[in-house]
Amino acid sequence: MQALELNKGLNYRQDKPIPEVSADEALIRLKLAGICATDLELVKGYAQFTGTIGHEFVGVVEAVSQETHRHWLNKRVVGSINIGCGICDVCRRDGPEHCLNRRVLGIRGHDGAFADYVSLPVGNLYLVPEDVPDEMAVFTEPLAAAIRVFKQLEHWPVKPVAVIGPGRLGLLIAKVLALAGYDVEVLGRSAMSLALPKQWQLKTALVQDVSANYYDYVVDASGQAGGFSQALRMTKPGGTVVLKSTFSASEPVDLTKVVVGELNIVGSRCGPFDEALAVLRQGNIPLETMVDGRYSLRDGLAALQHAAQPGVRKILLQP
Amino acid sequence: MQALELNKGLNYRQDKPIPEVSADEALIRLKLAGICATDLELVKGYAQFTGTIGHEFVGVVEAVSQETHRHWLNKRVVGSINIGCGICDVCRRDGPEHCLNRRVLGIRGHDGAFADYVSLPVGNLYLVPEDVPDEMAVFTEPLAAAIRVFKQLEHWPVKPVAVIGPGRLGLLIAKVLALAGYDVEVLGRSAMSLALPKQWQLKTALVQDVSANYYDYVVDASGQAGGFSQALRMTKPGGTVVLKSTFSASEPVDLTKVVVGELNIVGSRCGPFDEALAVLRQGNIPLETMVDGRYSLRDGLAALQHAAQPGVRKILLQP
Repeated sequence: MQALELNKGLNYRQDKPIPEVSADEALIRLKLAGICATDLELVKGYAQFTGTIGHEFVGVVEAVSQETHRHWLNKRVVGSINIGCGICDVCRRDGPEHCLNRRVLGIRGHDGAFADYVSLPVGNLYLVPEDVPDEMAVFTEPLAAAIRVFKQLEHWPVKPVAVIGPGRLGLLIAKVLALAGYDVEVLGRSAMSLALPKQWQLKTALVQDVSANYYDYVVDASGQAGGFSQALRMTKPGGTVVLKSTFSASEPVDLTKVVVGELNIVGSRCGPFDEALAVLRQGNIPLETMVDGRYSLRDGLAALQHAAQPGVRKILLQP
Repeated sequence: MQALELNKGLNYRQDKPIPEVSADEALIRLKLAGICATDLELVKGYAQFTGTIGHEFVGVVEAVSQETHRHWLNKRVVGSINIGCGICDVCRRDGPEHCLNRRVLGIRGHDGAFADYVSLPVGNLYLVPEDVPDEMAVFTEPLAAAIRVFKQLEHWPVKPVAVIGPGRLGLLIAKVLALAGYDVEVLGRSAMSLALPKQWQLKTALVQDVSANYYDYVVDASGQAGGFSQALRMTKPGGTVVLKSTFSASEPVDLTKVVVGELNIVGSRCGPFDEALAVLRQGNIPLETMVDGRYSLRDGLAALQHAAQPGVRKILLQP
């Protein structure tokens, strides 16, 4: 089968064997996949992953190993990305997200979705409602990650929230929080980067125009150490910064403000697929306007190069 | 009067004018002061402060401006260090700690305590109980800062807690948490640094011997970026790191674990003086064993050099 495989650089293969499906797994034929910033980081060496990359996808179940899973056959599905060991305390208490021995689809120990076929445990699968087209369903994973921020903020009173980074993920976070009733401002470094947030009816501002100590809640989805430093700067003492994006350690960050201002820094990663699908059914996020390109797997290397260009948001891949 | 004044380097002066006391202030004659890591950082340029340094002290009120404050005269006092504007929302709601226009004793906009006399608003003063000697009372400010960590953790269930950094502040934090019933482990980089924690009946371990993802709660009082990186490493996913020490931005810290492990980072600064004095009255912290030297103000420069030596804990200053 075709696959975009990371192994001393990213390669397009035509001859990768179709994944073998273990007892609890399903084999899924790819319909559509999305390129995420993490994929770009993996290519640069993040997490030292080797194998097929890709973790945002929608596909159709073509095979299962067990009779009890036959009801999944021919179903259109998306899949959550963490595959826990299933037997540790973490898995039993809180699920697979933070299992220390977890595999992660296309990121750690498990081949990903930028291929004709991908395997996942059936426990990771979510049925895609018929009224959610592939072009929406492919956003389930990043939308779930955006909803995670809402989950982490929801026990606090609704106050103005800033989202730094009007990119792939920041835009989704801002829209989710706005739909939930938050007074959201999207912050970017250029007027051009704020055009789409404006089109989405979100309030915007240039990050460099925001005063110090201005917001109680700031979400950093900038993907850069510079964004995090800005987040610290503009957060009020006693305020909260949700750190959504990973960035390399090469740029130093001054954490003095965290101590002196007694800030809370909250890490945020994966979110609930069921709620993401429910939001997609409502159809009130114009996700199609985020798509900047659509490529076949055989043009996958060009697709990733396109996705890495500044200002580019979602690039989709199809078989 | 004598003063240790920071102004293009630290200087010992004999001719500094005694502070003028404004309407709400008291003039306090120094009895004993303590050198803190922040004082050493100020000398290196932290916070760009100029003026008399020093914020840990015990003294006697010698003058007040208003008749209504006369009951403070001749009283032995300690003083909290934040002087808010008193009129902003922050001051009115939460007190002066995070007032954006605050002055801070010996740190920001207000001359400090390494001098024959220091001034403070009477609202910052706390009467020292007669049964608490000067040598204990001088620890009120750092002990309050240690109690602040307890305050930030107390709404969580009691679980094993690690305190990285067996120094001036780490040791107090560990002892406060241990007295409060926490299962505390003090982590240091050398056996020598752990001798005093052991003498204080605290559990100890070498920081480099602790497994990754071991603790739910870690307090970083190491004063170094390396300590914070260790704190991130040894905290379980979903766990909490209390960041107690400031360090310069020159060493980069990889915050990937914060995001992927969804850690909480909680900044921690000043604490409650009344509770610190109550703990001091109980007399069950052997603070005298933390004192590594006692100097006169005229030998203040040597005292600060002594305090900056590795492994040295509290150095005291007297007129």
